[in-house]
Amino acid sequence: MPQPYTLKRDQVGSQIYDLAARIFPICRSITGDGVRETLRLLREHVPFEVHELPTGTPIFDWVVPREWSIRDAYIKDSSGNKVVDFAESNLHVVNYSVPVSRQVTLSELRNHLHTLPDQPDAIPYRTSYYHDDWGFCLSHNRMLSLQDDTYDVHIDSDHKEGFLTYGEYVHNGELADEFLISSHICHPSLANDNCSGVALTTQLAKQLMDRKTRFTYRFLLAPGTIGAIAWLASNREHVDRIKYGLVLAMVGDGGGPTYKKSRRGDTEIDRAVAHVLNHSGLDPKIIGFSPYGYDERQFCSPGFNLPVGLFQRSAYASIPEYHTSNDNLSSIGANHLGISYGMISEIIELVEVNAFFQNTSPYCEPQLGKRGLYTNIGGDEAPPDRMAMLWVLNLSDGKHSLLDIAERAGLPFSSISRAARALHEQGLLSEIASKGASNVRP
Amino acid sequence: MPQPYTLKRDQVGSQIYDLAARIFPICRSITGDGVRETLRLLREHVPFEVHELPTGTPIFDWVVPREWSIRDAYIKDSSGNKVVDFAESNLHVVNYSVPVSRQVTLSELRNHLHTLPDQPDAIPYRTSYYHDDWGFCLSHNRMLSLQDDTYDVHIDSDHKEGFLTYGEYVHNGELADEFLISSHICHPSLANDNCSGVALTTQLAKQLMDRKTRFTYRFLLAPGTIGAIAWLASNREHVDRIKYGLVLAMVGDGGGPTYKKSRRGDTEIDRAVAHVLNHSGLDPKIIGFSPYGYDERQFCSPGFNLPVGLFQRSAYASIPEYHTSNDNLSSIGANHLGISYGMISEIIELVEVNAFFQNTSPYCEPQLGKRGLYTNIGGDEAPPDRMAMLWVLNLSDGKHSLLDIAERAGLPFSSISRAARALHEQGLLSEIASKGASNVRP
Amino acid sequence: MPQPYTLKRDQVGSQIYDLAARIFPICRSITGDGVRETLRLLREHVPFEVHELPTGTPIFDWVVPREWSIRDAYIKDSSGNKVVDFAESNLHVVNYSVPVSRQVTLSELRNHLHTLPDQPDAIPYRTSYYHDDWGFCLSHNRMLSLQDDTYDVHIDSDHKEGFLTYGEYVHNGELADEFLISSHICHPSLANDNCSGVALTTQLAKQLMDRKTRFTYRFLLAPGTIGAIAWLASNREHVDRIKYGLVLAMVGDGGGPTYKKSRRGDTEIDRAVAHVLNHSGLDPKIIGFSPYGYDERQFCSPGFNLPVGLFQRSAYASIPEYHTSNDNLSSIGANHLGISYGMISEIIELVEVNAFFQNTSPYCEPQLGKRGLYTNIGGDEAPPDRMAMLWVLNLSDGKHSLLDIAERAGLPFSSISRAARALHEQGLLSEIASKGASNVRP
Repeated sequence: MPQPYTLKRDQVGSQIYDLAARIFPICRSITGDGVRETLRLLREHVPFEVHELPTGTPIFDWVVPREWSIRDAYIKDSSGNKVVDFAESNLHVVNYSVPVSRQVTLSELRNHLHTLPDQPDAIPYRTSYYHDDWGFCLSHNRMLSLQDDTYDVHIDSDHKEGFLTYGEYVHNGELADEFLISSHICHPSLANDNCSGVALTTQLAKQLMDRKTRFTYRFLLAPGTIGAIAWLASNREHVDRIKYGLVLAMVGDGGGPTYKKSRRGDTEIDRAVAHVLNHSGLDPKIIGFSPYGYDERQFCSPGFNLPVGLFQRSAYASIPEYHTSNDNLSSIGANHLGISYGMISEIIELVEVNAFFQNTSPYCEPQLGKRGLYTNIGGDEAPPDRMAMLWVLNLSDGKHSLLDIAERAGLPFSSISRAARALHEQGLLSEIASKGASNVRP
Repeated sequence: MPQPYTLKRDQVGSQIYDLAARIFPICRSITGDGVRETLRLLREHVPFEVHELPTGTPIFDWVVPREWSIRDAYIKDSSGNKVVDFAESNLHVVNYSVPVSRQVTLSELRNHLHTLPDQPDAIPYRTSYYHDDWGFCLSHNRMLSLQDDTYDVHIDSDHKEGFLTYGEYVHNGELADEFLISSHICHPSLANDNCSGVALTTQLAKQLMDRKTRFTYRFLLAPGTIGAIAWLASNREHVDRIKYGLVLAMVGDGGGPTYKKSRRGDTEIDRAVAHVLNHSGLDPKIIGFSPYGYDERQFCSPGFNLPVGLFQRSAYASIPEYHTSNDNLSSIGANHLGISYGMISEIIELVEVNAFFQNTSPYCEPQLGKRGLYTNIGGDEAPPDRMAMLWVLNLSDGKHSLLDIAERAGLPFSSISRAARALHEQGLLSEIASKGASNVRP
Repeated sequence: MPQPYTLKRDQVGSQIYDLAARIFPICRSITGDGVRETLRLLREHVPFEVHELPTGTPIFDWVVPREWSIRDAYIKDSSGNKVVDFAESNLHVVNYSVPVSRQVTLSELRNHLHTLPDQPDAIPYRTSYYHDDWGFCLSHNRMLSLQDDTYDVHIDSDHKEGFLTYGEYVHNGELADEFLISSHICHPSLANDNCSGVALTTQLAKQLMDRKTRFTYRFLLAPGTIGAIAWLASNREHVDRIKYGLVLAMVGDGGGPTYKKSRRGDTEIDRAVAHVLNHSGLDPKIIGFSPYGYDERQFCSPGFNLPVGLFQRSAYASIPEYHTSNDNLSSIGANHLGISYGMISEIIELVEVNAFFQNTSPYCEPQLGKRGLYTNIGGDEAPPDRMAMLWVLNLSDGKHSLLDIAERAGLPFSSISRAARALHEQGLLSEIASKGASNVRP
């Protein structure tokens, strides 16, 4: 049996935070230099392979769009004051805006302004990827302060033939069966959504690099929607290797944890996450699949229907900071990132260890006492570790995985796996197959 | 896809009420002219075919009983006053009473009187179909007022060789698969039970007459128990065409709605009714099958086990008016009848439209934006109609019907079917088969 | 159909109590004369066959241990006062203690003393079966009263080649399929655990002796754990005859009733017990299987996985008397034993009668009236007995047992079986097969 994986949450949380902070300022979009620059920084830690698909490549119902570049953008009043300036915040421009340079009245300008009346000091995050348009995002208060005037609007951007870029790192395990961990890398300066997810994914990959694993781990950092579609189109024939999958997003705040189940809803990743979260001491929210959210939408489209769920702390759109300038570095914390890291690590640990065993002495209980596995004076209640051993022996008939046993016993997986290890060492269990390995036919 | 069915509830409710009021006065029984006269009136609206089985015809464990006729009945006191008179209310005579003409003491008379001590002003409705007996029903207060006297009891009735009569109208659809709608037509002057059901059934048939449908609709108006048995005996080899079925009774009051599931409990009619009622804005009661009630008893007998449930507003025997003279025309209302009609129409609509579709672009999401099916500025929560489209696309794998999708999405069927129609028009869905059509092998 | 079994609970309760009281004083252990003497007394009522396996016989992962005999045991202070004396209570010695005879200081002595600080007046019950050790159990208060002194400890016991003894009585029924009832017989003077279970098992056997039954009943009185293992090892090839099984323990107090389900959890014995307990008028606790407890641990080990549950009143270890000197004859009552007996008898009755029937008139309802099974004046609610008949007719399609019908109808089994008997007598039902009989293939 694999040995347990020792966690060091405190230290790891700070490392993830530092990485998130480092990539925060970059102006990312679904294509362009923002993603490339982000991956360049991350490759200092993990050798992500950079994949690029040319503009115009057909990917299922879509085509790879043009590459967007932006150099500058502002709105100037007639006195020459920049009342909105991209240099101040990359959220100020509707992401993927077409270039514009002209004078407009306040009334015309307003058709291109996006604000949040309910959060009058926050700048919203808006995109216009698949419809040619331009616009500015600004705080509602700043918009109210605009005088009736003629404004000079200027967006120095272009859309040209180029590439869609994504990063991928594969850690090979004993098995070809895979665990996919994916984060979207297309959002500009938003800390929780999703610098936090990108940084956590990178840290998980880094941690596994020097470890032998059973499963193969595939880490994917791709632009939302179009990047996942591009990856799926490029890997269509291999996706059935994916036995477990998680999309990670918004993992840096203190909410949740929140788990949205895969479309199938009863897969092993769904059960593993639910088990770990339910024993986390936190107050998890486990919700059913719905076809809106992050890239689980693509992984769980009916043609693929992969066992991929979404792990978050607060659920997207459930907190006021979501998709606003308030989702900055103060909205995430090293402690929260460390806890998120710890939970994902426990899920990985569970997946690595979870297996079917056969009780080698299935007729009546084996005599634990003669093997030093039983207290000597009878007559008391069984202590928890003994209960874990009795459960493992009772249910190890080749049909119950350790997770099945933990669930039925109402004990944490770690207690069941510790008992299984002790029994395995005594020859009372033989391992049949890893759960999720494609050679298992339970 | 079939087009949605436009309802006009208000107008329809009054029409149903008028029809119920018209047939209310007739003295029906399980056989005889009452049923014939009722069907004659209904045939002014819908060409019900009248079927007659001769007395003595064996029908399963039963035989068609003799035909009952009644001309007059009364109890006279020694002064010649009619203290109970059939001419005043046809409930005054125990239905199917044998003839009698003799003088009795009050004490003998009492053995043949039926009253309701808890509702001292109401006349109960009682029958003695399968046991030769005679009796009178009267208000408890009237019984208490009877003096010690010699009474002249007179029932001018007879039981002779004749027929059992029922009406049937079949609206042929594209499919031979049927939707059965059945109401009992044997009760005398009781408005809710079941002039309301008979009138609603007639109105539904009338409304479908000029409409093209997928399913074939069979409308049955037969005397309770014996009529359903007669129909089943006459149609034994065809009953497996019935894919959906509803018994309608007590549909004119403001209670419920109440749905009693079929014996199988998980059939499509059970799911369709539950869905419509749960989205009705009312407070429905959905209860399990039990072998007591109306003619679902026969349709759901173990040899047939048909997918037939019972739709009511208030449940039978749950309101004090039930089976008393208080179940008169003031106990039903055009508005309630209109709402009942609306719910059954929605159920029919659901059954007509419900089908299995295949997402023609099942790998990742199709690009809705380029087809005008997606708002252009991203970053907000998905609006309901977009959610309906995403659900339909996600679950249209040929294995989920639109109702399955509506249930899983937690959205009303109408929203899901509207989304399916939009996607179908764009070629993003292809229809596989109607749910319930016998050529479906899901 | 078998006739119902008439119970006489009051009288039976006293008989069980007297039997429990008679075997209470004997010092039993897992081997030795205590078990033999107990079986000798019980054989005055039921001809239990006594089986003996020689020391050293391999039984699965275990071997039959040596036979333990004890003649005397005490602790004397330096003045010669016996401060702890086996003659006073056989709980004073750790059961299966090795012999000892030497002088020890108080401090050394304490390493061999067992007390209950939370119940300072009670003597605990402790064993050391599979580890060579000696010890004394005493009240905590007595231990506190011991002075700093030199003590003479003396245990006159021995472990020698001998036998493991168990008793078995088989009542043959029409079917080879068996109902196993088992109680552990190894505890010394503890009344509820398990003189009560041993006495109840004996009384049940006695009662069945002069009765014809469908199933074969096997009554087993064996030492806990090792006795059950010995029996299973000796009967390995026959255990699949066991279609129902109960372990009886702690059946003499007024708690519960408590039923712990078999490992499979959904077997017929689980359903039968739950049904009877849920209709008992008491407040039953029905709990899932866990691999700790009494001999259901062995019967439900994965190699056997038999349909055997545990019936108790209070659950073991849930009451303070458990495994202490307070579990004496005042902790059990004839009334409680009578009620326990009544519930087990009802379970047996249910198992005997439960069968699959075929409605011989499955198309529509049969006409109950012409057979005198229906009240004559219609129009009222169906009374309970009629409902039971309608349920039996509706669900007797050869696939629903009477217990299935009782559960679905929400009626007690006795009501359903009475209805079935009436319908069977009228030829409206034919019996297909007993539930649990191995020739049933439902």
